[in-house]
Amino acid sequence: MKWSKAFIPTVKETPQDADIVSHKLMVRSGLIHKLSSGLYSYLPLGLMVIRKIESIIKEEMSKKDAIELLMPILQPKEIWLKSERYEMMSEVMLKANDRENREFILGPTHEEIITDIVAHKIDSYRSLPKNFYQIQAKFRDEIRPRFGVIRAREFIMKDGYSFSMTQIESEKIYQDMYEAYGVIFKRCGLDCAVIEADTGVMGGRKSHEFTALADVGEDTVVSCKSCTYAANMELAKRQVQEKSIMGIRQDPLIEVSTPGMKRVEELTDFFSCGPMCFIKTLIYKGDEKIYAVLIRGDLEVNENKLRHYLKEQVINLAEAEEIIRITGADVGFSGPIGLKDIPLIADISVRNMTNAITGANKNNLHYKNVNPGRDCVIYDYLDIGFPVTGDLCPNCNDELVFKRGIEVGQVFQLGTKYSSKLSAVLQNEKREDVPLIMGCYGIGVSRTVAAIIEQNHDEFGIIWPMETAPFKVIVIPLVYKDEIKKTADMIYDRLRSNNVEVLMDDRNERPGFKFADADLIGIPIKVIIGKKTLQEGKIEIKIRKTGEVQKISPDHLINKINELITSL
Amino acid sequence: MKWSKAFIPTVKETPQDADIVSHKLMVRSGLIHKLSSGLYSYLPLGLMVIRKIESIIKEEMSKKDAIELLMPILQPKEIWLKSERYEMMSEVMLKANDRENREFILGPTHEEIITDIVAHKIDSYRSLPKNFYQIQAKFRDEIRPRFGVIRAREFIMKDGYSFSMTQIESEKIYQDMYEAYGVIFKRCGLDCAVIEADTGVMGGRKSHEFTALADVGEDTVVSCKSCTYAANMELAKRQVQEKSIMGIRQDPLIEVSTPGMKRVEELTDFFSCGPMCFIKTLIYKGDEKIYAVLIRGDLEVNENKLRHYLKEQVINLAEAEEIIRITGADVGFSGPIGLKDIPLIADISVRNMTNAITGANKNNLHYKNVNPGRDCVIYDYLDIGFPVTGDLCPNCNDELVFKRGIEVGQVFQLGTKYSSKLSAVLQNEKREDVPLIMGCYGIGVSRTVAAIIEQNHDEFGIIWPMETAPFKVIVIPLVYKDEIKKTADMIYDRLRSNNVEVLMDDRNERPGFKFADADLIGIPIKVIIGKKTLQEGKIEIKIRKTGEVQKISPDHLINKINELITSL
Repeated sequence: MKWSKAFIPTVKETPQDADIVSHKLMVRSGLIHKLSSGLYSYLPLGLMVIRKIESIIKEEMSKKDAIELLMPILQPKEIWLKSERYEMMSEVMLKANDRENREFILGPTHEEIITDIVAHKIDSYRSLPKNFYQIQAKFRDEIRPRFGVIRAREFIMKDGYSFSMTQIESEKIYQDMYEAYGVIFKRCGLDCAVIEADTGVMGGRKSHEFTALADVGEDTVVSCKSCTYAANMELAKRQVQEKSIMGIRQDPLIEVSTPGMKRVEELTDFFSCGPMCFIKTLIYKGDEKIYAVLIRGDLEVNENKLRHYLKEQVINLAEAEEIIRITGADVGFSGPIGLKDIPLIADISVRNMTNAITGANKNNLHYKNVNPGRDCVIYDYLDIGFPVTGDLCPNCNDELVFKRGIEVGQVFQLGTKYSSKLSAVLQNEKREDVPLIMGCYGIGVSRTVAAIIEQNHDEFGIIWPMETAPFKVIVIPLVYKDEIKKTADMIYDRLRSNNVEVLMDDRNERPGFKFADADLIGIPIKVIIGKKTLQEGKIEIKIRKTGEVQKISPDHLINKINELITSL
Repeated sequence: MKWSKAFIPTVKETPQDADIVSHKLMVRSGLIHKLSSGLYSYLPLGLMVIRKIESIIKEEMSKKDAIELLMPILQPKEIWLKSERYEMMSEVMLKANDRENREFILGPTHEEIITDIVAHKIDSYRSLPKNFYQIQAKFRDEIRPRFGVIRAREFIMKDGYSFSMTQIESEKIYQDMYEAYGVIFKRCGLDCAVIEADTGVMGGRKSHEFTALADVGEDTVVSCKSCTYAANMELAKRQVQEKSIMGIRQDPLIEVSTPGMKRVEELTDFFSCGPMCFIKTLIYKGDEKIYAVLIRGDLEVNENKLRHYLKEQVINLAEAEEIIRITGADVGFSGPIGLKDIPLIADISVRNMTNAITGANKNNLHYKNVNPGRDCVIYDYLDIGFPVTGDLCPNCNDELVFKRGIEVGQVFQLGTKYSSKLSAVLQNEKREDVPLIMGCYGIGVSRTVAAIIEQNHDEFGIIWPMETAPFKVIVIPLVYKDEIKKTADMIYDRLRSNNVEVLMDDRNERPGFKFADADLIGIPIKVIIGKKTLQEGKIEIKIRKTGEVQKISPDHLINKINELITSL
């Protein structure tokens, strides 16, 4: 394509509303144009990159026998009521009412719809397993759309859904998709961490996230310094550094008057020690039971872990009045000593604490020198906190490290949550009714573009990895006339007839301007044609990523370019 | 692809809610599945056909230097207020409100959005002309979704928009698109009429519709029996057969008492003659003026034509009270005689009427033997009616014929309606501000699938034209085992390695069942492998369209198939 016929509206100025480099570069290199908060048009170059990613996805899905289809964006509310997800997801869903005031959801995901198709259209276990996918605009009513296409209201997703008769078959497809996703992101030029993840609103039993490491990412990847362990914050297990308590004397318990001191800062000031010296005591309610949960003062309880360990459906902090009734004191004065008939559940961070400070379950009083075990009976020590720097790997005991990243893909084992509610049930060989076992597999196509840029850029612009580059080569005649024009045209035609995706900058602009634009839009290989080198019978090839320059004869160009496309 | 790995849920039963053959066959051959009224999933085979059509569109657009991009589905209400189309289109638009209660339109078309992009991103006339397009889901809140994907609430459109500095440039692109659309529909295997059309809610100066002729179509194509004239009903011009009035005596005007007779049936009964003997008199109001419009009793006034001829912005029938004030009589007793200061505008159908019946502008009275010219002065005779059988071509005077069709594409010259309202204005070479001249060009991609089927089917199923067939060849082993399986696998592999799109029916089903499915889903070429022909060292090729069968040696298969793909 010739630049003059294309539409690549590059801009020098950094857009004011862009906080992160990928957003800035996507606007500056003419990939996107903002219509409204969280709504972007993909301009031609941006769409070309999207299509490259889609092609990679389609190729890898096809290798795993996944089948493409296309479901409607509009979904009737009724089907979301059937799956019992309407309430849970209502807040983040965009909805439209038709002229008869029937409500439709603008699809944020399609588990309900594909399950309905399978329930109606597959009538024998012999047709299974099947693994479907589509690539489509999805919608989310974000509270605060930001970071360009990373957190948008309308975005492009690949969403896939598998149906199997047995757990083994289902796990085989999960494994297939896990592998395919690794290949896809690698081909996209992304460095991804694959981490254990929470199943969230999808439900189900197992999940992995593919997170592109990037300093600006909204997600945190917790991983081990030495072994392969990796998980997101929600799910990350941890061990706590065991301080030796040998030789540390357990001092006598002392009651200390702390009038009106409920806030952490007041207490740390008063006791002249950091929050690590305190044991926080939180009163939680399960479906029926009450628990007192202890954790070191500087840490936070991960309620998902807590709920999971306690085998409760829901778990909530008790209200102020209930706390008074249970502990006998106001919120802020709760402590582990003297709570009758309430099990004390302690985070592992509490295990080695000595001479700690806690509330006394009496207003305006705290205890000093609390030693769990001596002063109160701990029902169980569990890993129920979020990991922090200094925590250790649950597998190998080496240090945990924390990295930021952008979630670009996620795979889930869904079990029978949707199939049983939406009647996707088939008879097996023994004529027993079996609700189908599902998996779901998503890739954020549009945010993958941003993630690629976060990982592949320099101060001059984007550096596209070869497979996702909108063009592999840009031909730059320093002046587009006379002999240079003739050679440029010849080279452009030759590249095109050899199926090399090539852009020619045929504009009447200064060479410096053209180079800056070529760097900004990030085309991997420049072919530069100037008077001086042409007099030597040569043209220049310059690699965007390394800056490396070679002079070669035009006759060797095609071979050289093909070699570079394969090797870069 | 092997059938066992594919998802082609064919059904024998005709779906109950399907009225037309394309809808029935799309469901029966497993192309679509209904989610809700006017909402369909495209199952794998249906999506493959959609993708074929999209590829054809992209190829032809690329030949004309049109540039693909992708705009958001969600469009802020504000931009529709700016273009002053919100009120006009509000009724048919689906809308979603976000969490801050801002209203968004689910795009039915994208003139506003592309004009906004051009206004922001093109800053010099030297970048023009540009012609953009996208392929995307579109939305319409249909009163009565019907005919499967033909009138759906969510459908796939190619929509294109051009921007030029001059009318000449703009018309050049219009002509390019006109030609490209002809090629696209031809390649899709469609027989289309290209007709002059109304610009409707798009506004603008000129438009053509591409209408696939089909008995079930909702649109009527009016065309000449002998010359190339063609138009839609809204726009079709006509001449009326001139009966000779030589020798017909103009009888004296008679007042006839017609107590309470306002309805046509009462009057035709009473006078014992058909509606063709009556002149209807309709009182219309323009912006300021009042008109009495006369038309033969069996015909309808085309208000668009009337408005256009009278050069009025709006034209409306007068209310009952105004009619009494203007004519002195109730609605139903209006007539041309005695209306003071009101111009009588007559349709050409009135010109040769003699001794007609009209209202008398007095309650309960009609006139017999009204002769325009003798009894009242006609201000002008105009073509302001909808054509009917028997009307003549405006160009050559031969008969007009009426055909039904499905509108699959439309091109519009928009002028500066959107560019001037949305500030898409550039300076020309003389530094004068010029609002850009626009065109827009649409193809209904999903309804094109239905139109192809309407024109290409028989009692056994679909007969795909080669270019839109999901697979070009289906390999049918009569029994998928032993020697037949071996040959079938070999042939399947050989076709695939020669890039022939091939489906293999590897199911354990009876031959008759497989043939019926192959006919139903309409694959153009069957390659049939059976024991008997195999013993002769042959396989069979059967053409779906003609039923023609040939036996050939497997060694000649690839050549034969390539020959058939080119020639069919």
